[in-house]
This record gives sequence, C-alpha cells and structure tokens, in this order.
Amino acid sequence: MSNYTQIFKGTAFSSKSSSEVQILKDYLFFINAEGMIEKTVAPDHVDYQNLLTTYQGKENFHSLGEGEYFLPGFVDLHVHAPQWAQAGTALDIPLYDWLNTYTFPIESKFSDLAFAQEVYEDLVSTLLANGTTTSLYFATVHKEASLLLAKICAEKGQRGLVGKVVMDDPEQNPDYYRDLDTQTALKDTEEFILAVKDLAKTTKQGVYPVVTPRFIPSCTDDALKGLGELAAKYDTHIQSHCSESDWEHSYVKERFKKNDAFALHDFGLLGDKSVMAHCNFLSNDDAQLFAETGTAIGHCPISNAYFANSVIPIARFHSMGVDIGLGSDLSGGYSPSLFDNARQAVMSSRMLEDGVDTSLPTEKRGVSNSRITINEAFYLATAGGGESLSLPIGRLQENYTWDVQIIDTKVSSAKLPIFRNNEDLQDIFQKIMYLVRPENIREVWVQGNKVHTRA
Amino acid sequence: MSNYTQIFKGTAFSSKSSSEVQILKDYLFFINAEGMIEKTVAPDHVDYQNLLTTYQGKENFHSLGEGEYFLPGFVDLHVHAPQWAQAGTALDIPLYDWLNTYTFPIESKFSDLAFAQEVYEDLVSTLLANGTTTSLYFATVHKEASLLLAKICAEKGQRGLVGKVVMDDPEQNPDYYRDLDTQTALKDTEEFILAVKDLAKTTKQGVYPVVTPRFIPSCTDDALKGLGELAAKYDTHIQSHCSESDWEHSYVKERFKKNDAFALHDFGLLGDKSVMAHCNFLSNDDAQLFAETGTAIGHCPISNAYFANSVIPIARFHSMGVDIGLGSDLSGGYSPSLFDNARQAVMSSRMLEDGVDTSLPTEKRGVSNSRITINEAFYLATAGGGESLSLPIGRLQENYTWDVQIIDTKVSSAKLPIFRNNEDLQDIFQKIMYLVRPENIREVWVQGNKVHTRA
Ligand SMILES: [Zn+2]
Ligand SMILES: [Zn+2]
Repeated sequence: MSNYTQIFKGTAFSSKSSSEVQILKDYLFFINAEGMIEKTVAPDHVDYQNLLTTYQGKENFHSLGEGEYFLPGFVDLHVHAPQWAQAGTALDIPLYDWLNTYTFPIESKFSDLAFAQEVYEDLVSTLLANGTTTSLYFATVHKEASLLLAKICAEKGQRGLVGKVVMDDPEQNPDYYRDLDTQTALKDTEEFILAVKDLAKTTKQGVYPVVTPRFIPSCTDDALKGLGELAAKYDTHIQSHCSESDWEHSYVKERFKKNDAFALHDFGLLGDKSVMAHCNFLSNDDAQLFAETGTAIGHCPISNAYFANSVIPIARFHSMGVDIGLGSDLSGGYSPSLFDNARQAVMSSRMLEDGVDTSLPTEKRGVSNSRITINEAFYLATAGGGESLSLPIGRLQENYTWDVQIIDTKVSSAKLPIFRNNEDLQDIFQKIMYLVRPENIREVWVQGNKVHTRA
Repeated sequence: MSNYTQIFKGTAFSSKSSSEVQILKDYLFFINAEGMIEKTVAPDHVDYQNLLTTYQGKENFHSLGEGEYFLPGFVDLHVHAPQWAQAGTALDIPLYDWLNTYTFPIESKFSDLAFAQEVYEDLVSTLLANGTTTSLYFATVHKEASLLLAKICAEKGQRGLVGKVVMDDPEQNPDYYRDLDTQTALKDTEEFILAVKDLAKTTKQGVYPVVTPRFIPSCTDDALKGLGELAAKYDTHIQSHCSESDWEHSYVKERFKKNDAFALHDFGLLGDKSVMAHCNFLSNDDAQLFAETGTAIGHCPISNAYFANSVIPIARFHSMGVDIGLGSDLSGGYSPSLFDNARQAVMSSRMLEDGVDTSLPTEKRGVSNSRITINEAFYLATAGGGESLSLPIGRLQENYTWDVQIIDTKVSSAKLPIFRNNEDLQDIFQKIMYLVRPENIREVWVQGNKVHTRA
C-alpha cells in the first residue's frame, strides 16, 4: 500500500471509445511512484469503503470539492513553439506573406537564446494553464534553442516531444533562415536527438526528440532520406506537415508524381510514431497507407480555417482506422487552448456536412456523414492524441499516466451555467467542453506531479 | 468644465469604417453627466498638455496602465436569455429535438420568477464580464419574467433591449409553452412595452422594449399583424428570426409564397429599428429590402455552424448596404463572448470563401470574395451592432456613449504573447481580438458608469 504516492477521489470523464464518454462518478484513483494510475476503484466495489477509511484525511489524499471534475490532460499534436510570439497576428494575409513577413523572421530570432527562453517559458506555462499536459512541438532550425525548449518542458513538468526543424533546401527557404546545408541539418538533428535522450533520463514525465522535416517543399531528397534513417536508428517520433493546402499538395505531386503520404513513406517517415499535421487533402489511398503504417493525423481545425482551403473529412478517415488527435497549430491557429480547438473541430465538421454555400440546394451543399460530436472532439483532444503518439496517455484508467486537469465549474469569476444540484453529468460534461475558460482549470497534474495551480 | 464627470486617458481602438480600425493613441476622453463622450483630445492637439495638467491626479481622472487598452463595449444582437441555463448542451441533436426536448421545456420554467431571477442575474453579469455592454434579448412568453429581465439589466447597468416572446399558434407550439391565444399575446406585449418604457425613465443607460415574434412559423397572421401595429404605435425595436435554415426558409415560402423578408415586411415588421437573426438564406431581393427599410442582420456565426445549414454571405450583404452586427444566439451558440463570435465570424467567412469539400477542385469549392478580416469582425461586434440598433454606441468618438471594456494584456494569469515593448499597435489589436479571455477584461463601463470590475 505504501507504493501509492497520491490518492484522488472525484468524478472523472474519460473516453470509453471514440464516441462514448465514460463517467467515473466518485471514483478513487491510486497513483504510484512512477506517476501511473495503478488502480481505479468504483463506489460499488466491495473494497471502496475500506479504502476510503484507510486513506481519507491523509496528506496524499485529494478529494474534489462540489462542482469539481477530472478531465484527462490534453494532448496537443501540433505546436510551432516560436510562433507563440506572433499568435493571433496577420491571419488575414496570404500564406506566402504570412511565412515570409511574419513567421520566418520571427523563427530566425530564436538563434538568440535569451529571447527563446522568454518565449518558450511563457508558452509552456500557458499551455499547462490551458490543460495541455503533452505537446508535440516544432521548435526552429536552431539546435541549441530547440534543446532549450526540451529543457523548459522538463523543468516545468510538461511532457514535451520536441523537434529541431529541418529546412535545408536553399531554393525554397530564405538565406537568413534555413539549415546551413544538408549535412549540417542531419548532424544537428542527430546531436539533438542524443541530447534530448540524455535529458530524458532525468525527466519523470518524459521528454522526446522528434525527427522534424518542416514539410516536403522545404527539404532536399537527401535530407528527407537522412531523417528517415535517423528516426529508424534512434526509434524516434517523426512529425511533419502533410497535404495541407492546395498549393502544398500540388507542389509535392509535381516533384514526386505522387501524394505527400507516399513520398514521405518512401523516405521512411511514416510509422507508428509518426504524426502528420493537417492532412486535409489525403486521398483514400493515402489514408489507407496511414492506417497500415500507424501514422497519425494531427487535426488543426482553427488553423485549417485560415490556411488549409477546406475542412478535413475526419469522420471518414477515422472510420478507415487512422489515428487522429488535435493540434492547436500555434500560430497558424491563434489559440493555445484545445478546448477552443475541440469546439472548432465540431463546428468545422458540421460545416463540411451541411456545406456553406446557400446558393446550392441542400442536397448538393455538403458532404453527408461528416459531423463529429463533442464527445468525439473530446476523444481527439485526449485518448486520440495518446494513440497518435503511441503513449499511455489521454485516458483516466489503469496503466495510464496521471495527467489530469481539475475543472472547477463554480469558480466565482467564471461560473458555468449550472443551476440545478442534480444536473445530468452528461450535460455537465458538455457544458465543460463548450464553456470552460482557463480560469476554470484549477490544477493540472502530469505523471502524478502537480504542475499548475490557479491562485 | 465641471460638466465632465469622468476623464480617461489611454490608447483605444475604434472602427473608422467597416474595414479600418482607428488607433487612438494616448487620447483623452471627456465624459459628461449623461455618460456620453463629449470630447476627445489627441496628444498632438494644442490643448492636450493643459488639459492633462488640469485633470491629472483628480479623483475622476483615470489613466490606463502599461499594457491596458480601451475597446468599445460589445453589442450582442441576439441572446435567448432563458437558454443560458442550457448553454453548451445538446448541440449534437437535431433542431427539432433540441427545441422540444431541451429548449421549450426550459423556457417554460421561466413562469417561475425565482428561477428566472437566478438565471437572468447570472446571465447579465456573465455578459458584462465578457465585455457585452448592450444586449438584444429574447426572453420568454411570460410577461412578468420578461419584465424581470429588463429590471435586472437596469440594475446591473447593462443596456438591455428586451422582448417578451410571442408564439401564439396552437398548431406550431407545444401546449405547455405558448401564448394563451392571439389576443392575450398582443395584450401582454402591449403591457410589457408600457412597463419597460416606464422603467426606462429611471434607467440611465437605457432599457428598451422589443416587439418579438419568435419567428414566422410560431405565429398566426393576426399576431404578426398586431405586433407590427404595436411596434408602429410605440416606435419600438423589433426582432425575430429570418431565413435561418433550410426547413424554416421552406416553411415560410409554402405558407406565404414569398420569402421571410417580404412576409415580415407585409406585417410592418421591417424598419430601421428591426434586427433579424441569422438571415443566411436571404435572396438578393430580400437583402435589398433590408437595405431599403434599414433592417439589420444579427449574424450568429457560432450558432449557424449548428443550425443554419450554411454560412451567411456577410461580405456580399454588407456590400449591398445592409446593417449587420454580431449575435451570440445563446444557446444555439454556446458562447456568451462576442470575442468568440468575432473569431468564428472570420473563420466561417474563410470557409465560405475557400469551400470545405476537398473532393472538389479549388475553383469550384468556395465562393470568392466572401472572407472578412478581424477588423471587420470587430466592426460587427461594435459599431455595426450600434448601427443595427440605431443607437449611438459601439464607437469611441464624440457623441457616442462611454461604453468600454478595459483590456489588460498583462494580467499574470492570462498574459497575451507580447514580448516587445514597442510592438506594433495593430498587432496588439489583433492579439487582443484573437486571444483575450474574460480575465483580461479588467473593467467594463456603460454610459459612463463602471458596471464590472475583475477582482
Ligand atoms: Zn504547422
Ligand atoms: Zn435565436
């Protein structure tokens, strides 16, 4: 019994399947020294009362108050960490200008480690305060600053998967912001992988190096090939952008006479630990290849509204067996909150199903069976993200990490509209998903450690 | 000089036109006893330094701190006040079920004044905390509870325009929730108008009765005719739903052999003080009629994603001269925040422009020239709302009301990502519009009175 470091009691919501949310009313959660949920006990279990008597009142026993609930911590599958400095700006300009006038200039500034530290510390704290316990990050091309981001995640207690970005093609990238050459890009990546693996040894919640070609257009064939080999050599996660927009999709088709998915696969960049952002323009064959290789989609609904020229058919890809999670895509997406992105995932799917153009007749306007529910969006933000990363996260059940957000629906400055004492818990869950603000997130825990508290 | 009750100094953002935001850097704002902006003085004005010397340090002189900005208070053109009790729930079910299983049962409970008081007080406080200084409300069919809502607005200092809802057709409405009969509906409406006009005499910021047929399908011809006559007799505002969804649009066409707009016009329900919610399916002739009569559109972008089967072509209607503002449409829309709705207005317009279905070629996917910018969304939430209501609100300029939100970009729990001291004010404006949370709204003023403060 002494191996439980923490015991929690309260009502939790966790995905049972992609469409069903399980309500764990008044459960006990027993956390071990590794920060894993070793045991959950329901109130109707024979031992429940005894366990309660044993642990209640002890220092490591935490009981939720009235109106408080556990949600799994969110898993953000796509964050451009340096772009936090420009979040919310310039979304009205075309992608080309957005990259060249805003994004590349700001990313290039991360050669300055002091600036990197200021922005990255603020970002990681902000994401934790928004309930994001695991993030898959693009850093910049700079090896040192990328490692700094991994260190900040380690220190602040977030589970960070971090990639030093590779963009080595001199034809496609500005001179002031790219890898020196292909060989340097690969050497820096390998050194980065080793340094993060070293850091991981002392990081309880885990920190992971990620092989990160920015996207096919910014990389030479040699770089893509070398990155695939590094990922295989060190068994790392892999991330990139895939079939995001009309332009990008066409570019790859012209260069390789095939879609992104098959081109990435040729370079050894698809697999169980691969997450590809956006993927709006995957064909059915591409999606099939994703399903077969275990490659996941990082769905970025807010960003897609600005830069992806379409809504991704999530419901269809999911039915084909592709792993899918949510990404904020800071700062193509403006919001650091996966609550915001979950809401947008539902709304965008409705717009795909119903269509948008009133001049078309109803039956020609949209794509039937495209909608997802708020339960499914919650799944994407939690368990779906965990499956995408092949990590035991995103669910509140045995053998998963204790990564949780404690939601306070009664905080006076942001009370949710709950007016009945016996309100249905499924309705409360929906109110949480649609109406929670960061100030409702009272505490955040990662791997059994408290990493954020609201004053 | 003694007629200035308050003087404010700080940087403000206010719409210059529907697409341009004016930055009033370090302006002085002089507020008179009526709560109107009597005078604004720019730093380059010859009197600026003298005025500063005269007022600085006085009790009624308020100077913004570092990182603080004035925005006009928001104008929410469409709120179903009783539905606040169910906000965020049941958005995955069809409209018919949503109305009959959730909405009508909850609205019917507002015959209970204690329940009405609890929900309405919480709603008005929540809207103020979200920066909404003026709201156009649908209450319920109940005269007393509707009047209670007007009283709560009056007390809490919000500018409330409140309608007792009329839904008198026994064929179209449930027995447990409708007007007793047509005559009672009209009599209650008239008494309600008189009571609110009486309340207005002692309400500085204004409180207004609104003639409110729920929508054509719920009203008899006699009720619609009688309501048009009452609106004319008392010169009131008018609100309803118009051409919202495929179903509703078809229903009206079948009943009157014309679109909603012309049917409403026949009953005297269009005019300069009319605001119609949604309006997705307006034809060009309908929009022309709106422009000619001065009828405004209450655009509800979040709600439309769930229930309107389309995206309204805002840019086109605006170019035709129709007044347009934003509505939260609680609780068809889940969010009480017009920040959220402004963001969604931009995103939905992008989806209309780019289209949603990746199986279509680029050029056939969307509707060109449909996008609106964040500046335009800000205009809709502020000045556009004011013009829609024909009230001098929504702009920070002379002869407008002092309705403002003071935005704190540096509040420690929700700091915006601003890392440079000299960051461009247009970029700061965009970060505010995209990233502000209620906790960044430090104070809210209506008609020269402070009505909300963050602890
Ligand atoms: Zn990206
Ligand atoms: Zn409505």
